Amino acid sequence: MAVLPPGYSIRRIEPRDYEEVVETLKVLTVVGDVTRAKFEETVEFWNNSTVKAGNAEIRAYNPHVIVNAEGRVVATGTVLIERKIIRNCGLVGHVEDIAVAKDQQGKQLGLLLIQYLTRLAHEAGCYKVILDCDEKNVGFYEKCGYRRCGVEMDHRL
Amino acid sequence: MAVLPPGYSIRRIEPRDYEEVVETLKVLTVVGDVTRAKFEETVEFWNNSTVKAGNAEIRAYNPHVIVNAEGRVVATGTVLIERKIIRNCGLVGHVEDIAVAKDQQGKQLGLLLIQYLTRLAHEAGCYKVILDCDEKNVGFYEKCGYRRCGVEMDHRL
Repeated sequence: MAVLPPGYSIRRIEPRDYEEVVETLKVLTVVGDVTRAKFEETVEFWNNSTVKAGNAEIRAYNPHVIVNAEGRVVATGTVLIERKIIRNCGLVGHVEDIAVAKDQQGKQLGLLLIQYLTRLAHEAGCYKVILDCDEKNVGFYEKCGYRRCGVEMDHRL
Repeated sequence: MAVLPPGYSIRRIEPRDYEEVVETLKVLTVVGDVTRAKFEETVEFWNNSTVKAGNAEIRAYNPHVIVNAEGRVVATGTVLIERKIIRNCGLVGHVEDIAVAKDQQGKQLGLLLIQYLTRLAHEAGCYKVILDCDEKNVGFYEKCGYRRCGVEMDHRL
């Protein structure tokens, strides 16, 4: 069973994580010119976005980080919760933007973060949690308990 | 070029569309016990959910219907707009829950709805629009201007 290394923990992203989250996300793709103000505004927007789940209001955006024993951000990822009409006005979790710092590979941080976000989404009431990945990462996500179910397609201008 | 049949139009979902939208969605999957009250509450929640896009607030949920010349709902679909940190705090559109009434197939309503939602998302500022589909529908979405870019995976309890 995978467990976090001693001293590591998982928590929601906070505005003070600006530099370390931006640095961690660069492993994944182009981050671009994200200023501290834009980052903080985004985190504030995420914190204030809710979804109606039965009689409760839950958070739509659930961005998290894993921090190491020194409190440094070493991984990040999120799950966005969507409300539908189908499946009895069901909720679906979308796992997005999983990134692990290059010097932290091999510690199962990606697996632990996926499992954490997946559980969070199910406990919030999601009937399913989905994610899109490259063909080469299918085996990794299968280890996280996911199974192949469709094709992702995109449209760019 | 695909155009809507005479008298048909595309507009946002309204609370009064309850019965016809629920009926149309049954083509897609299990809708379940969605009462009028739950439907109306969901539409109200969708209408009030916003995303920060630069200095503007845009709608996060963009559920639409195509109605025929008699005003009956004959197709439905939505695009959810997500705010990220990557790509300069970029926006991504998620096209979801496209359904066309069985007796309306062959009129290119699915294609027209996808093109409409895709354009709406790009005009709102999305750098890409994505969707997940079955392998057998890849050719259809390619006609809509999409290309295969990854694998969809899911996790269910």
